[in-house]
Formats: sequence, C-alpha cells, structure tokens
Amino acid sequence: MTRIAGGLWRKVIAVQVYGANTGVGKTIASTLIGAHFSRRKGPNRWNVNYIKPVSTGPSQEADDRYVNKYAKCRTTTLFQYAEAVSPHIAAEKARSVPSDDHVLAGLSKQLELDAQQTSHSPDVMGFSLVETAGGVLSPGPSGTPQADLFRPLRLPVILVGDHRLGGISATISSCESLRMRGYDVDAVICFKDEKQYGNAEYLQGRFDRMGISTCTLPWIPNLEGCNELDEETAMRDYYDATCQTDALNELADCVIDKHFTRLQDLESLAKRTRQAIWHPFTQHSQIRTDDEILVFDSAHGDHFQVKHTPISIANSDNEKVAPVLYPAFDGSASWWTQGLGHGNSKLSLEAAYAAGRYGHVMFAGATHKPAVELAERLLRGLENPRLRKVFYTDDGSTGVEVGIKMGLRATCKRYGWDGSTEDIGVIGLKGSYHGDTIGAMEASEPSVYNKKVDWYRGRGYWFDYPQVKLRHGRWAVEAPTGMEEAFGPPQYFDELEDVFDIPTRNSSTRYEAYIRKTIDNLIFNQGRKFGALIMEPVLMGAGGMIFVDPLFQRCLVDVVRSYNFSPRSTSPTSLEGSLDWSGLPVVFDEVFVGLNRLGRFSAATFLQVHPDISVHAKLLTGGLLPLAVTCASNSIFEAFLSNSKSDALLHGHSYTAHAMGCHIADQSLEMMDQIKSGMDWQAYQADWTLHQAYVPGAGGLSSGKTQERTSIWSMWSKETVMHLSKLAQVDYVISLGSVLVVSLKDSSGSGYTSNAAIGLRDNMLYNLQREPFGIHSRVLGNVLYLMASMNSRPSHLAAVERVLLGKLD
Amino acid sequence: MTRIAGGLWRKVIAVQVYGANTGVGKTIASTLIGAHFSRRKGPNRWNVNYIKPVSTGPSQEADDRYVNKYAKCRTTTLFQYAEAVSPHIAAEKARSVPSDDHVLAGLSKQLELDAQQTSHSPDVMGFSLVETAGGVLSPGPSGTPQADLFRPLRLPVILVGDHRLGGISATISSCESLRMRGYDVDAVICFKDEKQYGNAEYLQGRFDRMGISTCTLPWIPNLEGCNELDEETAMRDYYDATCQTDALNELADCVIDKHFTRLQDLESLAKRTRQAIWHPFTQHSQIRTDDEILVFDSAHGDHFQVKHTPISIANSDNEKVAPVLYPAFDGSASWWTQGLGHGNSKLSLEAAYAAGRYGHVMFAGATHKPAVELAERLLRGLENPRLRKVFYTDDGSTGVEVGIKMGLRATCKRYGWDGSTEDIGVIGLKGSYHGDTIGAMEASEPSVYNKKVDWYRGRGYWFDYPQVKLRHGRWAVEAPTGMEEAFGPPQYFDELEDVFDIPTRNSSTRYEAYIRKTIDNLIFNQGRKFGALIMEPVLMGAGGMIFVDPLFQRCLVDVVRSYNFSPRSTSPTSLEGSLDWSGLPVVFDEVFVGLNRLGRFSAATFLQVHPDISVHAKLLTGGLLPLAVTCASNSIFEAFLSNSKSDALLHGHSYTAHAMGCHIADQSLEMMDQIKSGMDWQAYQADWTLHQAYVPGAGGLSSGKTQERTSIWSMWSKETVMHLSKLAQVDYVISLGSVLVVSLKDSSGSGYTSNAAIGLRDNMLYNLQREPFGIHSRVLGNVLYLMASMNSRPSHLAAVERVLLGKLD
Repeated sequence: MTRIAGGLWRKVIAVQVYGANTGVGKTIASTLIGAHFSRRKGPNRWNVNYIKPVSTGPSQEADDRYVNKYAKCRTTTLFQYAEAVSPHIAAEKARSVPSDDHVLAGLSKQLELDAQQTSHSPDVMGFSLVETAGGVLSPGPSGTPQADLFRPLRLPVILVGDHRLGGISATISSCESLRMRGYDVDAVICFKDEKQYGNAEYLQGRFDRMGISTCTLPWIPNLEGCNELDEETAMRDYYDATCQTDALNELADCVIDKHFTRLQDLESLAKRTRQAIWHPFTQHSQIRTDDEILVFDSAHGDHFQVKHTPISIANSDNEKVAPVLYPAFDGSASWWTQGLGHGNSKLSLEAAYAAGRYGHVMFAGATHKPAVELAERLLRGLENPRLRKVFYTDDGSTGVEVGIKMGLRATCKRYGWDGSTEDIGVIGLKGSYHGDTIGAMEASEPSVYNKKVDWYRGRGYWFDYPQVKLRHGRWAVEAPTGMEEAFGPPQYFDELEDVFDIPTRNSSTRYEAYIRKTIDNLIFNQGRKFGALIMEPVLMGAGGMIFVDPLFQRCLVDVVRSYNFSPRSTSPTSLEGSLDWSGLPVVFDEVFVGLNRLGRFSAATFLQVHPDISVHAKLLTGGLLPLAVTCASNSIFEAFLSNSKSDALLHGHSYTAHAMGCHIADQSLEMMDQIKSGMDWQAYQADWTLHQAYVPGAGGLSSGKTQERTSIWSMWSKETVMHLSKLAQVDYVISLGSVLVVSLKDSSGSGYTSNAAIGLRDNMLYNLQREPFGIHSRVLGNVLYLMASMNSRPSHLAAVERVLLGKLD
Repeated sequence: MTRIAGGLWRKVIAVQVYGANTGVGKTIASTLIGAHFSRRKGPNRWNVNYIKPVSTGPSQEADDRYVNKYAKCRTTTLFQYAEAVSPHIAAEKARSVPSDDHVLAGLSKQLELDAQQTSHSPDVMGFSLVETAGGVLSPGPSGTPQADLFRPLRLPVILVGDHRLGGISATISSCESLRMRGYDVDAVICFKDEKQYGNAEYLQGRFDRMGISTCTLPWIPNLEGCNELDEETAMRDYYDATCQTDALNELADCVIDKHFTRLQDLESLAKRTRQAIWHPFTQHSQIRTDDEILVFDSAHGDHFQVKHTPISIANSDNEKVAPVLYPAFDGSASWWTQGLGHGNSKLSLEAAYAAGRYGHVMFAGATHKPAVELAERLLRGLENPRLRKVFYTDDGSTGVEVGIKMGLRATCKRYGWDGSTEDIGVIGLKGSYHGDTIGAMEASEPSVYNKKVDWYRGRGYWFDYPQVKLRHGRWAVEAPTGMEEAFGPPQYFDELEDVFDIPTRNSSTRYEAYIRKTIDNLIFNQGRKFGALIMEPVLMGAGGMIFVDPLFQRCLVDVVRSYNFSPRSTSPTSLEGSLDWSGLPVVFDEVFVGLNRLGRFSAATFLQVHPDISVHAKLLTGGLLPLAVTCASNSIFEAFLSNSKSDALLHGHSYTAHAMGCHIADQSLEMMDQIKSGMDWQAYQADWTLHQAYVPGAGGLSSGKTQERTSIWSMWSKETVMHLSKLAQVDYVISLGSVLVVSLKDSSGSGYTSNAAIGLRDNMLYNLQREPFGIHSRVLGNVLYLMASMNSRPSHLAAVERVLLGKLD
C-alpha cells in the first residue's frame, strides 16, 4: 500500500508543513498560510483544505479546530489520539496502532477527495496543507519517523524554523534530514522573535545559499494574562494583518511557482531528453513521440513515480481525478541493479557519511577502511577458498575486462605463449554477454548485435548446452535443436532442486565426452589456443535470460581443469585439492547472478565449484551506484609478480575503490544479510521447499547459510510459477531467487517473435484500471522477465503476480 | 591552517560532546563523563581535560568553572564572550571575530598540550573532552556551523540527546547532520526525564539499529526553590552517584573501545590491504613492507589524514607528541579527480538528496531530471555548436570506447567500409593514453605497457609533434629529437599566451605539409584506413604530462577535416560553416583536461576548434564518484539511425546516468562556475596576465567567460613557476590551470631516470619537520606533477610551492 501515487495534481497544490521542532509555531504558520490562500487575490479562487494526519491531545483543543476557526478553511484530522504525547506513545496507549500504509492511504485518499472537489470548478485551484506533528523525524503512530512515513507522497515541504536559542541548528538539521530523504523543501518560515537570537537573519543567508526561499513572519502576540476573548481578538487581528503581508504573498508565490515549475519540468523532460540525450541500447528512430519516454519524478521502495501520459490516463479509472503521477513497480529492478529499494534512507545516510569522511581518496599506493572491509566481506561471503584478492573497477564490463586480462596473462605465462602476437581466445557459452566495452564484447560470440561494433572480433569458442525450462508444471532439461545426439533426450524433474542435484544426476559422462571431443577438435585439428573459461553461472542475463543446465556448466569446468591446453607443456594440469588453477583459469561472470540475485551470495555455489576469478557488480552497492570487483586466486595474482613494473596488471580507474561505493557496498551486503535471515525470505524458502521442515524463527544467519547450500527457491510464489507454465500463451517459465522469466509462444507466426512480449509489457505498464499501479518490465525477444529487490514486499510481489496471471490467463 | 592533524593520539582519547539542541544537558553530561574518568578504576590513571572552545555569557557562570567544580578536572576555555547569545552574535558584538582557522588551531594546540602532559607519565592515559556550544550546527564565532568548523579534527562524538517533547526528532536529525559530515558518533546520551515522552526508549531502539550505543542517564535533580548550598549538595550527590553507575561505565567502555578499535584498524589496514587488495597499476612484488601503503583515516578539503609510519615519525618534530595522523596535501588531486575538496558537506548533502529521491532508476526508455539538466548544462558549457547529444557512461575509459564506437561507425557508414572485416584505425598522437579497457587501449600506440595486455592490438597511426616547455624562464616549442627538419627549429615565446595565439603563429604551413604528407603515405602507399582522429587537447596526462604544441593539434584537426580519407568516395570532405563532420570525426578526450582542470570548461577552446565528439569524466562529479559522458554532434548521432535495432549504439551500463552521479555533477559544475568568478581565480588570472587590466570585483560569470577565451594562466604562481624553470636540477616546467609539472634532469646517469622524481616525491611526503604537513604527489618517469582542486586555498598552494622550491633549490 505504499504503492500510492506521488502527491501531485495539476489543479491542486498540496504541501506538507514540517516543524524544525515541536513548539515552533507549525499550527500558526499553517493557519497563516491557509488564511492567505482562502483570501488570496488573483485570477483563481482557492479551495483550501487543511489535513492533520495524526493529532494527539484532546480533540476539542486539536489543531484542526484552531485552523478552521482562524483560517476559515475545511479541516480534517485523520487519526486523533486523546493523550498529548508523541503519536507512537498515544497510539500504543489507545491500543490502536494503524500501520504506516493505513495512515498513508488515508492521507492519500483525503488529498484525492480534496482534488476531486476542485477539479469540477473552473477558475478554482486547490490548496491542500498537510500539517505534521512534532519535528521532522518525530515518530508516527507506528514509530516510523514522519519524514519516512510520508515519503511516498513526497509532498513539497514548508519547514517552520525554530526561532529559539539553538534553533538555527535545529532548523538546518531538520532541513538536511528532509533533503536526505529526497524531499524538496520549497521554503523555510522563520518567526522573528523579540529576543536577539538573530535566527531569522542567519537562516535567511544560509538557505539563500542552498537555493531555498525563506519567509520571515512577525512575532506571535503575547497572550500572557489575556482572557479567552482578548486572546481570540488578538490572534484574529494577528492573522488578519499577517496573512496578507508581502512576506506571505512571497511565500505563496514561491510555493505556487515551484509547483508549476515542477509540473513544467515533468511536462518538458521527455522532449528535452529527446533533444539532449543519446539513450543506451536505443534505436532512436524507433522513438516517435515524447510519450514513449517514461519520465520519473522520483522513486521509493519498489516503485517509480511515473508521469502520466495520454496513454496511461486513458487506462486509468476515469472517475478519479487523474493525478500527475502514477506508481509503477520497478519490474526490471532498474536493469538488475536494485537490492534494497529506491530512496532507502539508510543508504542515503551511509552514502553521505562516506562522502563526508573521505570524498574520493586516491587508492594507488594507499588504502582506506571501506575498501578493505568490503574486500574482506566479499572474500568471506563467497566461501571460495581460492579467492584471495579483490581488484576494484567501475562496472561489470570493466570488471570482466580485468578478469580476462588476469586469466590470459596467467595462461600465457604458464604455457609460454605470446598474447601480443598469437590469437588466444576464451572458451564460453553461446548467447553469453559480458558487457559493452570492446574487450568484454570480444569474450562473447559474434551475434547480429556485436558484429556491428567495428572493432569487435569474437575471440574464442562458445559451446552449445542444454537448457532448463519449466513447461506445464514440470522442469525439463532440453538440448537445443540438432544437439539431441550430443546431449541426450529431454530429462524431466519434479522439483527444481533435483536439477541442481549434481552428484546424483547421470548425464555427466555424456556431457564430458562431448566437451572433451569438442576441445580436442579445436586444439588438435584447428590449432586454436585458449586463455580462459568464462561464463555466467546458471542464468545468462542479457543473452535472453537463459537457464543453463548447471550440470553442463559443472562438467565444462571439470573438463577444462583437467585438460592439457598446451600439448607441449609438461606442467601438471590438475592437482587434487590444490588451489592453483589448472587447464585454464575459470572466470565466473557473476555480475548479474551473484550477490543474492538468485538467492545466494555466490551463484557459483549452485554448481558446487570454485572459480579462480569471480566478477561482481550491480547488486554490490544495493543498487545505488556503480562499483565492481574482480576477485582472484593467489595463483592468478602471482602471475603478475616480477621485477618489472610493466608486468603488473595494467588497469586502474581514477575512482578505483571510491570510498562512497565501497562503504555503501559494505553496508548493503550487511543489510542484505539481515534480510536473508528475515521472515520474508524464510517464507519464500518454505513455499518452495515444503517437504523440508520449515521452522519459523529458526533462521539466523548461520542456519540460513547452511540452508542456502541445499535449497532452491524463488521470491515468486511456486503456485504462480507453476500456473504460468501451464498457460496456453506461455512457452516456458524460469524462476530462481528474485528472477521470474516468462517465455511466450510465437503463435502468431508474424515473424516478429517479440511482439507478444512487448504487448504484455505495455499491458502491464498501463494496468491502471483495476489496481492503481503499473508494472514496468523489460523484454528480451519473446521473453518477459521480472525481478524483485531483496526487500521487495511480499504483498507487492503477490500483486504483480496477480496482474501477470490476469493478463495471460 | 585547516592543515592540522586529525585529533587522534595513542595515549589520549579526545572526544567532542555535541548537543541535539541547546538546553539538553551537554554540560551536565560533560561533567559526568569528566568525573567518571577522573575517578575511573582500572590499570590506568586518567588525566582528564575539559576544553570549551567557545563560550558565551558571563565568565563566572561559564561551563568550565562548573565542570571544574564538580568533575575535578583541568578545564580551559579558548574563546569567551560576555553576552549569552549565539557565538556568532556575541563575537560580532564584541568586535572580535576569530577566523575558523584560528579557533581550530587554538583547539588543536590545546589538545596537543594536554597530550604532551600525558605522554611523559607511564600508566597515565589522557581523556580530553571538547564541549561545543548549542546544537550541532549552531554557528561558531565566524558563523560557520560548528560541525563544519571542527570537522578537520574529526573527533569522535558523544551526542547528548534531547529529552524533551520533540526531542526524538532533534536527536536523530542531529546525528544525521554529524554523520553526513563524516563524523563517527560513538554514543548518544539520553537523560531519562520524569515526563512520559519515552524518548530514551525510542532512541535506544533506533540507534541500536544504526550501530550506535546509547547511554541512559538518570534525571537531573529538581533544583527549584533550592538555595545555593542545597543546590550544590544536590548536584554533588547527583554527580557522585551517577558518575560511577553501570551506565557511565558502559559509556566510557564504549568510548575507550571505539578509540582502540580505530587505532587498531589504522594499524592493521596496511597489512589487511596487502592481504586482500590487488592494487591498480601496481607491481606488488615492489611493495615490501606494510609501511609503503599510505593509510587514510579520512580527508578534508585539500588534505588527507594519513596514519604516521616509522618513516614519517622520524621526519616529524620530535619535541611534539607525535599524533597518530598527519595531514598531507592531496597533490595529485586523487588521480586528477578532485575539484571541490574532500568531505565537502554540500556535495554530501546533494548526494544524499539524489539517493533519497531516486536511488538509481532505470534509464533506457526513461528519463529523470538530473540526467537532463546535467546534459543541458554540459552542452551549454562546452560552447561547441556541433555537440548536441550526451551519452552517459561510467568512467573515462568507457566514455572513450563509446567515442570510438561513434566515430568508427560514422566513418564506415559514410565511406562504405566494413569495420567487422577491414582494419580501421584511429589517428592519434604518440604518448597518448585513453584508458584501461581494451578498446580504449587500442586507440593508443603500442608501448612497453599496453603491449603486455594479451588482447591489445594497437589500431592506428600516432603522430610525432612539437612540445611546449618552460626552460630558464622562457617558453619553448621544441621538436622531438630527429624531427627538427619536419617541425623546424625551436621557437621561443615570452608569454605562454603567445604559444596559444594560433592565428598569428607562423608554423602552420610547415605543420600542415608534414601532416598531409604523412597521411598521404599511410593511405596511398600503405593502403591504411582510418575511422577517427582522437586526442587529448593541449596536455596529455598519463603519457607523461606532455604539453603538445596547440598549433600542431589545431593543424592536425584542420588537415584531417579537409582530407578525403576515402579516395573512392565522392562525398564532399569539408563544408565551410557546416556542423557535419568531414574527413574523419574528431574525438577529443577531455577526461583529464576538461571541465576546468586547465582553467576552462572545455580544453578544446585552447585550440579554438570544435570536435565532433567530446569525452568528459573525472572532474565531472567534482571528484566524488565515477560518471562520464560522451557528447556528440547530430551528424554522428544520425549515423546510428535506421529501421534496425541492431544499428543502434550498442552500449549501455546498468547504472547509465545514475541519478546520484548526474545530480552531483550538475551541482559540482554549478559550484565550480561560482568559484571561477570568485576572487581567488581572479587573482590567479591577474598574476599571470599582469599586462591585462585587472579590475578586482569586476569578474562575474559573463565577463569571466570572455576572459576565459583570451587569457592563459595557472593557479600556481607565475613567480614560482619561473623560478622553478631556472633551477639546476630542473629540465623544464609546465603550468596551466590547476596543473604544475616539473621535469627533472637525469643528471645521475644512473639509467633509472625516475629516481630523482621519486626522491623528490618522498621528500615532499615526509616534509614534516619545518611545516607540519606532508605533500602527496605522483610521478611519471622523471616528471613530478602537482594538481590543485578548483577551490584549493591559495595559502595551501603557496605553502606547497614553498616546500617544492625548498627541496629543489
């Protein structure tokens, strides 16, 4: 239910009033603003609504009555608690603790109702003011700090500064806490008190430099000794006099201006994007209108806030006042990166901490704590006794290039080859994709795509392999067309777990014979040379979400490691129990599949094999910013040692091991570890492994780790996955960890196999009628895939499944 | 003077007490902690010092007297103002506003004195407590928020929470403001008041989850109606009872524990680094001891805080108590990235804002404001009418790869070549270096370094060129050995500006003839094909800080643009005034030289020429994290348009246009623009262009921009640069914008030309005797270079120059 639309309407300006502290005059400020808009001169009449989401204290003394009395606007309180304490205590005492979703939904609905009122009258604009309780991080009823609780709406903020001694600090700090959570602070109000603290002057200068407007308001009448009537008169005079001053006019102008600027930005962004931006992997001639570009206002948790277009509005429930934004589930995990949700305030703070402590500091010849702690955590977590060194790069592609440089050097050195004159290739799998830089591309087989890159020369040999597919509720391992003789007839399994039961499966001999024969042919008949085996374990991403038979990958590693690739070399090719590489260095590209994407820290564990080199990126930072690592064994590392500087690994980005990336990654992996032992993940595992004893609460990191090794499961419900695999339009399904892949049948015979998937994708994006959220997804040919964050809400995933089934059934 | 050592000693624990607000009991907490340590049981006696850097109000009521009375420890107040208001007002009223440096230096000196006291007694540990005034961001005397003012010392923090209503928010916010500035918050103290606000309970849970200890202390005695004597008795009883409770014991244990953990971390990091890290561009066999790895505790402004090693301690002033850290000027601008200084709190906040608003959001098929605004700012700032599209990548190397993909495609398409089968090279300059990924490497000539990368194949032709060098106070343009016939005899210039006066220099004909003859030979005699001209304008970085004659680069562009590279093609090769590319697409790699590194937004303006493709990175984010752009003309962009997806530019990183990077970059470029029109830059320009009228204050952005086009200047003083060029050990000097290059003579004849530069580098790093800061620099062969941030302090640069001259004179 945080799946709500961002709080932005064309004809209604909704703002949220936060206080730098309690007792700073939030309600007085709200009253003044309400009164101002109620009486505001101009082309429009303003329909003013005041909402207090949560109020504590006796209702007859509540803020809404006060505001109503002086501002003459409609007021609403959503949750009222009798005791005048912090909402989290009041709610607990009242034994009525609404969930954050409930509070947020209530507020969202009220704002929507107010907007409806306004929408029907021409020449009327709406102004809705939401007054919070206490300070910006004061707890809401459930205990969640308000700035976090209300973040999904991301209403622009008017912050009421603290006029008292110490108030400068409180005001700036509050503003920082809001900004850190992605809020736009439209303006700061400072009451100019009679004491000589000078807060207003100081704050004005400070906020000017931050580009935030300030509004200085005259001091509140001293009501000491007044009787009730005098008090009322004094306040009424104050409000009457103040609400139409220049200061309030300017404040209102600023709020109105920022509202329309935001609307205008959202309106213009697609057009400006098409003017100034060259998009990745995009055939720009196929983008014909601005509306084809999704404009993101922001994002939170599992959802983007997307600007409505004529298409999405046409798909919305017309009885409602269409807001400007709608929430769309980030179904590609923003190109496979997301692990901890968008706008995660803990990650924001950790990012800021690293920036504040270090900025970026030089790494060559130097070191810092985040880089070391992350490296140690990775080497620990990968549980691969071979991996001992971490090399930092900027992204998956550069990480793979480093992996290739490492592997080739080790091989050439041992076998006495000269890579600068001889053609040394890699061994890989068909359909693999390792990144977009030339070197990473060259490690993939030629295809219609990379062949068009002028400097691309495929350097290697890429194997065929059997694939795993769930068809009609049954897991099948199938050879590609024409390869049945090599790989045998389809094999069927009741449980996905059985596919991964490598020791007891009986195709190894056949696979190994095929692999050995193929390599023999390459070496002896074609005279080819190879420097490394590189592959993505289990699931090949960009190649089309291909689920490779894990047994085949395991056999490939085993054969390569026992093979003598340098017939003239007498060095031993395989040493039982040694951590030295043998045959060829084995490079695992875990950029997509690693670090919990498939439910495990390392995807290599699915194959029960230890690569010599392992590349990680994407989820590494929890999905916040680029960072990559290439982990290597000592035997690879030692191939670069000599007395000559020029034998060193000649790679190093300026931002190598940037402190922010390393610190965020270290924190993200820690946070993901906690999620892994939490109830949600236990439930996912139980759903897929019902025959295993499921002991709620008995998780914990250590027991979770043991389980990790044996169980095979997905965050997507087993029932849905099974159901999907039986639908008429569906060819097959794949599901593992956070990934769900649906391959659609090419039934139309139209030739464009991808049309069906694109249709489904668009259909899900504009699924705004029955359930008010879209689902953003990506397709690869006739395959549509979905991907969750590690902390996606089970209810969000269930809703996505419901929509998907609805569209395909 | 923020050039002070971080506040960390082995035998002294120095902490800073901040309050979540004023009136939260900071002084009571300080007294309790002081009293605790004064009486603390254990193996050590504690020498307790209390320091109040800035105090306001009558001195007889000042905090230091109070603490002294009850805690029985030495107390010191550094700056005392009579009026009981915020220090910034009190100081102004007293007409005595000390600079931040002065306050900080005073505090640093006092801490150092306290440490000296302790150092001489065995079995005595020091505990120094610095109590701040007001809240965490309350202004110091100059108006700078205290948390910013005291940041260079980065003392661990004990935060006193706010027990009052609203105090939860104030406490968490304060903690966030501290963390954002890179502070470690050791513990939060919560006084458990008698009201039922539940702050202590709530905060404990919250901070537990943040890994921060909390300490709940009993409520302060109610002194209402007490006479002075009763009051004193009550408080004494309170302190006596409380200072030895479990809660305070735990607090002290926690502070002690974190101190020793930090020391231990610093001690172990080098060793752990050598175990777990594979460093960039590093021959690990040449690192023989842990002490050769610089350990950075943190960084601020222009300086790293580096852990002392036996070598640095031996170089320090022995009369002082060696602290654990020493400041070292970041003389390579952390591998050429820094623009706005380390730990810039504005950048931290902006980073957190983007993280909080978006996290990272999908960019393919979508857009967001930071990406568009940055793209527009870049296209505007580059002032190149050709550049119309911005393609986002992750770093300079990937940005160059994209530039090459763009250029080659445009050429092959126009000339009907097939890059997948034909060898299409680039034209470049000898000694160029464009990055570490294979594709970027291949655009550079073969050298002892890249030839060892197995997949490297140099693809192109690289020209010789004349170089610019300042020798004996005179600017010379010199041909490389053996090329005098082609390039003519050395040319001498009085001012560097004259070297850049392209229209009036008279070598163009000779240069153009040479270039044309060379290309003729490549095309007609060798049958070579070329797809792009790529070069770093003016200054080639990694190749050895080579200052190329700008006239030569300009001629190369002119010839290439007018040359018909496809003899069979009938298409026009050059159209006067057209924005279409002609001859070959011209790619400028401005990764190092662009975005103000040489004092101008674009280094292309030095050549007065408009490239078709321009690559930018490093300074783009002000030096905080990796992001790169490749800007292109419409004529390049259009070469990728077709009806086929596979003709698109097949490049796209997962984190393409990550919101944090784009937003930080947009903000950084804005901040740098402001710096450019500021007084410091005007003074630099005046220093180098004395014959130009220098009108102080007449800067402003627009006039600054005009000036940008004509003036040639450096942040390093002209006098120093001239002086350096005349020294016996110096071969030549280069200086432009923020860069200073000193090439040393290879006088030793030892064969290892780089020994002299390495000696100078080490000598500057350990320059700790006369002036207490080191200078971290990098060398390339016999060249030592220095590089400033855009906002480096002139006094810091002057100090660096002084040291450099001292070492070489």
